[in-house]
Amino acid sequence: MTPQRPNVGDPSQTSRLSPDWIVGFVDGEGCFHVGISKHDDLRLGYQVLPELTVVQHERDIDLLHELRSTMNCGVVRRNHEDRFCWRVRDLKNLTDIIIPFFERHPLKSKKAIVFLKFRQVVAMMQKGQHLTDEGFAEIRSIAASMNRMQQKDSRESPLRNESSGIQ
Amino acid sequence: MTPQRPNVGDPSQTSRLSPDWIVGFVDGEGCFHVGISKHDDLRLGYQVLPELTVVQHERDIDLLHELRSTMNCGVVRRNHEDRFCWRVRDLKNLTDIIIPFFERHPLKSKKAIVFLKFRQVVAMMQKGQHLTDEGFAEIRSIAASMNRMQQKDSRESPLRNESSGIQ
Repeated sequence: MTPQRPNVGDPSQTSRLSPDWIVGFVDGEGCFHVGISKHDDLRLGYQVLPELTVVQHERDIDLLHELRSTMNCGVVRRNHEDRFCWRVRDLKNLTDIIIPFFERHPLKSKKAIVFLKFRQVVAMMQKGQHLTDEGFAEIRSIAASMNRMQQKDSRESPLRNESSGIQ
Repeated sequence: MTPQRPNVGDPSQTSRLSPDWIVGFVDGEGCFHVGISKHDDLRLGYQVLPELTVVQHERDIDLLHELRSTMNCGVVRRNHEDRFCWRVRDLKNLTDIIIPFFERHPLKSKKAIVFLKFRQVVAMMQKGQHLTDEGFAEIRSIAASMNRMQQKDSRESPLRNESSGIQ
């Protein structure tokens, strides 16, 4: 793990997107998700896949690219039909950029609770605990509680992909 | 119309919600809508009803109340089932608070275009143009174009109420 740079992920002065705007937008549209995908090559038969996604109609794809470049991580991809998403899956980017950003700039909605669970899963993965039976079971339980919290409100979440394998 | 106070609608120092956060949240979750409701008592048989709404799951009702108190206008009401909304309909509040706020703090998404149309309708209503056949026809056309822009993306918009009368 690299040392945390103090302003990683904070918008540069040239960005239109301020940290507060990003927090408001993610409070509204963001989804912190931990996917559990079947993956026969792995010892436990499953892969744990934490990700932050923000889905928008394609008319706002520029905004997703702006989010990507402001936060300096993730990718912009088609989600489904006319929806695109900005998605951060890389564990190092989640650890070094996304999580410190939302620690410095806390979410205001109840999504803040989901974020804490997400952070816990990422921390466990960094310690390799997802590779043990006990750790995996705990992550699975945390993921299920996160999904329950977001499910009622996640009209655009990628929950449907839980067992669809790696994309 | 009262003179515009420079900081009306800007969060006080005690609010958790900054202008940028509010813009980000409204970029994500807000809906600028112009409803056209049947209303037999009125000369043209219709009422024009511009409104800003932000819908959230009931778990975040506190956040809606915080939006309401920060912006110092609107009401928090049940939207449907387990959804609540912060809603601003009062023409004076739209004119004196909401529109100046989003002029000072522009939306970043394509919702900015919908906001311009919304502002145009509110300005026409202030001049009483919605009471003339010609003005009403123009407003109806603007409203339809706004709704088309938001429809694909408005999983939570109140569009379904267009002809459901005044609530």
